[in-house]
Amino acid sequence: MSVKLVVIGGGSSYTPEIIEGIIRRYKSLPITEIALVDVEEGKDKVITIAKLAERMIEKSGEPIQVNWTLDRKKALRNADFVSTQIRVGGLDAREKDERIPLRHGFIGQETNGAGGIMKAFRTIPVLLELAEDVQEICPNAWIINFTNPAGIITEALLKHSAHKRVIGVCNIPFNMRHSTAEILNANPNQVKIEFVGMNHFVFGQRVFVDGIDRTNEVLTNLANEKLDYSPANIVSLGWSKGFINSMKLLPNPYHQYYYQTTDILTKDKEALKEHGTRAKVVKNLEKSLFTIYSNKDLNVKPKQLEERGGAFYSDVACSLIDSIYNNKGDIQTVNACNNGAIADLPNDSVIEVNCFITKNGPKPIAIGSLPPQIKGDILQMKAFEELVILASISGDYNLAYQAFIANPLIKDERKIKSLLDELLCAHKEYLPQFNKGGTGDE
Amino acid sequence: MSVKLVVIGGGSSYTPEIIEGIIRRYKSLPITEIALVDVEEGKDKVITIAKLAERMIEKSGEPIQVNWTLDRKKALRNADFVSTQIRVGGLDAREKDERIPLRHGFIGQETNGAGGIMKAFRTIPVLLELAEDVQEICPNAWIINFTNPAGIITEALLKHSAHKRVIGVCNIPFNMRHSTAEILNANPNQVKIEFVGMNHFVFGQRVFVDGIDRTNEVLTNLANEKLDYSPANIVSLGWSKGFINSMKLLPNPYHQYYYQTTDILTKDKEALKEHGTRAKVVKNLEKSLFTIYSNKDLNVKPKQLEERGGAFYSDVACSLIDSIYNNKGDIQTVNACNNGAIADLPNDSVIEVNCFITKNGPKPIAIGSLPPQIKGDILQMKAFEELVILASISGDYNLAYQAFIANPLIKDERKIKSLLDELLCAHKEYLPQFNKGGTGDE
Amino acid sequence: MSVKLVVIGGGSSYTPEIIEGIIRRYKSLPITEIALVDVEEGKDKVITIAKLAERMIEKSGEPIQVNWTLDRKKALRNADFVSTQIRVGGLDAREKDERIPLRHGFIGQETNGAGGIMKAFRTIPVLLELAEDVQEICPNAWIINFTNPAGIITEALLKHSAHKRVIGVCNIPFNMRHSTAEILNANPNQVKIEFVGMNHFVFGQRVFVDGIDRTNEVLTNLANEKLDYSPANIVSLGWSKGFINSMKLLPNPYHQYYYQTTDILTKDKEALKEHGTRAKVVKNLEKSLFTIYSNKDLNVKPKQLEERGGAFYSDVACSLIDSIYNNKGDIQTVNACNNGAIADLPNDSVIEVNCFITKNGPKPIAIGSLPPQIKGDILQMKAFEELVILASISGDYNLAYQAFIANPLIKDERKIKSLLDELLCAHKEYLPQFNKGGTGDE
Amino acid sequence: MSVKLVVIGGGSSYTPEIIEGIIRRYKSLPITEIALVDVEEGKDKVITIAKLAERMIEKSGEPIQVNWTLDRKKALRNADFVSTQIRVGGLDAREKDERIPLRHGFIGQETNGAGGIMKAFRTIPVLLELAEDVQEICPNAWIINFTNPAGIITEALLKHSAHKRVIGVCNIPFNMRHSTAEILNANPNQVKIEFVGMNHFVFGQRVFVDGIDRTNEVLTNLANEKLDYSPANIVSLGWSKGFINSMKLLPNPYHQYYYQTTDILTKDKEALKEHGTRAKVVKNLEKSLFTIYSNKDLNVKPKQLEERGGAFYSDVACSLIDSIYNNKGDIQTVNACNNGAIADLPNDSVIEVNCFITKNGPKPIAIGSLPPQIKGDILQMKAFEELVILASISGDYNLAYQAFIANPLIKDERKIKSLLDELLCAHKEYLPQFNKGGTGDE
Repeated sequence: MSVKLVVIGGGSSYTPEIIEGIIRRYKSLPITEIALVDVEEGKDKVITIAKLAERMIEKSGEPIQVNWTLDRKKALRNADFVSTQIRVGGLDAREKDERIPLRHGFIGQETNGAGGIMKAFRTIPVLLELAEDVQEICPNAWIINFTNPAGIITEALLKHSAHKRVIGVCNIPFNMRHSTAEILNANPNQVKIEFVGMNHFVFGQRVFVDGIDRTNEVLTNLANEKLDYSPANIVSLGWSKGFINSMKLLPNPYHQYYYQTTDILTKDKEALKEHGTRAKVVKNLEKSLFTIYSNKDLNVKPKQLEERGGAFYSDVACSLIDSIYNNKGDIQTVNACNNGAIADLPNDSVIEVNCFITKNGPKPIAIGSLPPQIKGDILQMKAFEELVILASISGDYNLAYQAFIANPLIKDERKIKSLLDELLCAHKEYLPQFNKGGTGDE
Repeated sequence: MSVKLVVIGGGSSYTPEIIEGIIRRYKSLPITEIALVDVEEGKDKVITIAKLAERMIEKSGEPIQVNWTLDRKKALRNADFVSTQIRVGGLDAREKDERIPLRHGFIGQETNGAGGIMKAFRTIPVLLELAEDVQEICPNAWIINFTNPAGIITEALLKHSAHKRVIGVCNIPFNMRHSTAEILNANPNQVKIEFVGMNHFVFGQRVFVDGIDRTNEVLTNLANEKLDYSPANIVSLGWSKGFINSMKLLPNPYHQYYYQTTDILTKDKEALKEHGTRAKVVKNLEKSLFTIYSNKDLNVKPKQLEERGGAFYSDVACSLIDSIYNNKGDIQTVNACNNGAIADLPNDSVIEVNCFITKNGPKPIAIGSLPPQIKGDILQMKAFEELVILASISGDYNLAYQAFIANPLIKDERKIKSLLDELLCAHKEYLPQFNKGGTGDE
Repeated sequence: MSVKLVVIGGGSSYTPEIIEGIIRRYKSLPITEIALVDVEEGKDKVITIAKLAERMIEKSGEPIQVNWTLDRKKALRNADFVSTQIRVGGLDAREKDERIPLRHGFIGQETNGAGGIMKAFRTIPVLLELAEDVQEICPNAWIINFTNPAGIITEALLKHSAHKRVIGVCNIPFNMRHSTAEILNANPNQVKIEFVGMNHFVFGQRVFVDGIDRTNEVLTNLANEKLDYSPANIVSLGWSKGFINSMKLLPNPYHQYYYQTTDILTKDKEALKEHGTRAKVVKNLEKSLFTIYSNKDLNVKPKQLEERGGAFYSDVACSLIDSIYNNKGDIQTVNACNNGAIADLPNDSVIEVNCFITKNGPKPIAIGSLPPQIKGDILQMKAFEELVILASISGDYNLAYQAFIANPLIKDERKIKSLLDELLCAHKEYLPQFNKGGTGDE
Repeated sequence: MSVKLVVIGGGSSYTPEIIEGIIRRYKSLPITEIALVDVEEGKDKVITIAKLAERMIEKSGEPIQVNWTLDRKKALRNADFVSTQIRVGGLDAREKDERIPLRHGFIGQETNGAGGIMKAFRTIPVLLELAEDVQEICPNAWIINFTNPAGIITEALLKHSAHKRVIGVCNIPFNMRHSTAEILNANPNQVKIEFVGMNHFVFGQRVFVDGIDRTNEVLTNLANEKLDYSPANIVSLGWSKGFINSMKLLPNPYHQYYYQTTDILTKDKEALKEHGTRAKVVKNLEKSLFTIYSNKDLNVKPKQLEERGGAFYSDVACSLIDSIYNNKGDIQTVNACNNGAIADLPNDSVIEVNCFITKNGPKPIAIGSLPPQIKGDILQMKAFEELVILASISGDYNLAYQAFIANPLIKDERKIKSLLDELLCAHKEYLPQFNKGGTGDE
């Protein structure tokens, strides 16, 4: 048996992590061919990555072939798994998503608020095209989507492409499980968190260690700020005792944007002054990473990679591929079709949920009704996500406006038009769908 | 045939409007007995009102009896209709609801945000008791609830009392219909607006004049700020062209709190500095109204009453009573049990909706799915309202906290505890249900 | 103002009833042009009808033009209302629908069981084509669908054509209201029945006379077999006391097929022996009706027409057209899109329901949850109807089989194949969609 | 660690199977104490069973204590698991459930139709009392309910008792999996069937062997009658090719009652003539089993036990207990709270579904929407079950009647009253809840 993996956005600085994960799992998960695909602008980077990957594989002694190409369709032939980790418009676009909203008085962030919406607008049409190619060329392949906003993009693909083998992954549930395990002095594999919600808006309902409910211990630690599981890419202000005591749920780090909006905004403005945007920081980080990657003596994933926010992302993806390939029947937290698991949401919504994973993909474990204390916020976020998807696909200005209104981080009707117009203009090159019509001024 | 109406909160300065409405409709709606009920603190006011009412009736020549009493149970005997227009804690409590949140950086308003929540906390237990009395003493009577937050209170009564003949009324849909009629040069009776949403969060979907859809004309006027239907009690900033053009719905004035939060907050802070709270303004207004009412020569509803925000409230209520009593089968916009009319909301939610009104009460006209552009906001507001009701009844501190978090005007977890604690303390006297336990500090 | 009505199936023997209704209402509903459309096979009949109509109109003195044509598209130009009363395959097809199932041991009826399914299979594609024509030629026209199975066909049109102005009508609710009025010595206009369910499977929940609930009186009469509101076309066995006392709902005559299956089957078999099929009876009735219609001295609707089952059908349709044209805002019981009115059914299901009727069509009055005692049966019938529609459109043999299995009057898997195959073969000429593929034998 | 199991109905002839299962699993599932509980009438039988159990355990050499008692509350102290396998009224009652309906022309069966309803009526109040005892005495214990109708009873307990640790088990999914494995030459542990539906009305949607979809092979075998997985207690007529080819689902043996009603009824009538009721057959079987059990040399489960319909029932239960105790996280098919898994059914419905089993009980794997071809039947059966539960608890005659009407095997309103009245009378002794009021004759 041999398995072929295609990495869309193979020139990403994260790729060495995937390569490492593949090498490590080779005995049980025989990926024998890796195709790194990128676009013209990423050619140099994908070549650097491909060479590093070759050195890593050579060191491992496993019979894995790695190739790079700019020809996506060719790469997809006979693929079993297709991972996506692209950034339409690159870090320059991210820089705008972070800077422009802040200037209008709103949070500027890669996956939340106006920035997240624009990223979805740029990315969804591109990945829908990919999904159509996959459906045509390798219809049995699973798309493992890393690309953010991962939940929204996964829902867009599942709803609007013919290809139904799409799973979204995120490192947040992984991080929450690991941080929780640390606090409880437990092995992460023993820890199970009952998650409820959507990507970047997921809560932990209960924490079990070997089946024993230890939720209260975790909440106590959170309330006393003894637990911090924020990834590197977002600020962390900790949670108030009142919030944790009353909500009785584990928030995720991104919830700070929603429940500490004013303070985060202040911090972000300060950070902008001090270091520039996170995009700029990452740009420098990337530059130095690629310098390291180019070193012909390097044949392992360098430590420095973990400093980026997405650490473990690819570990999550490799585990998922492993369970699918080996029909493991274990539980993993992924972004999948709701199918009733959260009774309050439509069947075709994508949620971040514990799934039973087999050769036939993820099947959510039923959750039932949403906890009342977060029901409103989750329903609102999902309705917002639906508008983002509709706007992304149609390029309809009014739908884009409605998505902005529906977002709890924006919502201010007196400021949206100028913000939206500036963003649409700034990203014009990557938003062909919005360039057909007018700007709503008629 | 004779009809008895009991007015709970009969000492309210609004009562003369009801009296006027009753007199005017006497030929078709023979209300022959009016019992004005109030509490000890309101004795002077209810006596003044009763006397004015007597003079108004005498002038009219209709055979209507009016009495005042502090004995609610006695008043309820043989009642056919019971209207409620109470203010637990009086204008002093309102003053706190407006002032305290503002000081914490939040909107302070009588029916929205923290103020609205506190008003619900104070009022729901009192009106639940009333509903139990009605169920016992005059089970066929209809409760017509004017008391704000009218939607939340109506839902609380319908869900948690045995008495199911409860209807909530508000003057907002009435105002929107009348202002729209003015713009369109139409008779308000010819104008029908398809409303969707909840009390103080209701939108107009389509406007018909004699069955002809004239929605676009109204939207154009709104977008050009040529239409303003704000009542006296809330500021009005107008709506941006972008908002109206993209949303394609008629907002109600209270939506400004949600979609213009920052600007309204700024304005409210300025207004506070200049005039003090709206409660204080109203207090003065009331004082002068009662001076006018005391004038023994006065035998009509004085013009000055219309300056208060609730104008037409009682007109709405009288029309409703008329249609029930006369089994009219006309359409009125009231707060009633959803029963599927908005398919996205629970059957037992209370919504503000066009209803077919007969002797058997209001039956909503089915709406179907929520418009996508407001789905999220409406689902969130309803989930928030559910938490308010649960907290009001249980007196559970955590539920109160959750209601604050769920409210889009508050939401900031770093500030809620001090705000909530101060409000609970300030209103202690009227919140016995919250005084049983602790403050969540344990 | 002038109104144009197109009657699809204008050669139907029912048409004089419509003509009469139009003449009678002319002052308030000025229909000035009637186009009677039929197919080649019906040419003689439509000419006879057109001539009778002309004589009726002449007698009335109203300025109404009546024309007949075989060119549907031409007739549709400038139409305001399009009524449909067609019978694809004519009475010969009906004869097969009645005879063949009986021979296999199943009820053979025009709108229920296997016969009803086959009628839907033949009719839906034809009326979908009509709906497309209407959408293209006269998009503002309302289709008033009389054609049975009226509920299923209306749902098929609303779901699968672009034309959304479609309303289904049936005389059963009209009959139930009138029979009930008789029992209660009331004017039918004072009687309101709260209906719940679907066409030919509708129940009465409560009966009001001028707003007073008199349901129990009606139930008592029903339980004592003092009330029989069966139309001429179906047998009537009455209802047992136990059934009425326990169910506390008014059944409609068609419910006998479902709750008295064995007895009805026996009766139908006897009737077949004695008189042949109902189709044959109707054929004779029609023949004699047309002889009467041909009489050049006849200038009124002849009494004999009332002997057919569909009496008052066109009265129902005329009232509906009147309320739409005149924006009446009254309540009529029609087949319309659920839109949440019955919370247990999909929004896009068609139900038979009290609607508020205006220029903008019917809006159901919300009902809420189904009564538990009929919930299961109604959900099953609706799921069955969905399969019928899918099979009608796709011509998929398996879906046809599934529709048969899902029908409570068939359900016997050991007999379905031969029944279905014989029916598909017998109606081959009118089922082009089923002739593309095989018979499921592969 | 030590585990205590209480067997309610310990005198059942099935008990030796449980004992065997416990002994076999002792190393991983250390059940050290078994309490066999029965009622006075079952004293001799429970003593016989207890002695046999002791001999079986002695032979095994495992340190397991077994006791019998008539004092349920005492037995429940410190229980970890409580299995229920009772038969209220014994085989005499079953005999009536089988005989009486047949005489009225209906299927007479232990768990379906009128017989199943009466069994639910007798059993639910008794097991609700047990659940209350468990909640009081050993609140952490899991009730494993074997008692039929297992789905209805599990739903009754989960909805109407405070004890929420209740799981229903049935051997049908186990049998289907094993028979399927045989056909596919696979190890049953490799076979996974995606089930959808309720107890005794469950379908298999897809069959996987090691994650490979082999549904079509199974369907082909079924259509060619090469697969028969009927248990001993019900007749088997096989399925027609047309049914399997069109439905594309695996039916369970009990579906024959619903889709082959006439033929099964005929067969059952013949069987009655030939052998008397199944109850009588079982009575004789039981008698000879107990003769065998009494043999003091017997120290194993005798082969003859497998001839009864319930074979493997206790194997299913032991596996379940094992997975809970050991927090296994495997998938088992049990009767559990829907919680959205089937999106068309209420959250609090009990369904038969693949569940992820841990120390915290079963969590259904989400299924999404019902397959359209069975949607109607499943919704109807669930609505029927809801009526059975309401009638069981209330003892309301009208609800009992409604449950009969709602059952697709009865439904005939002209015959229900006499059938229902005779059954209520025949079982009077075990239906105290129905003896409070009248018989609906008033």
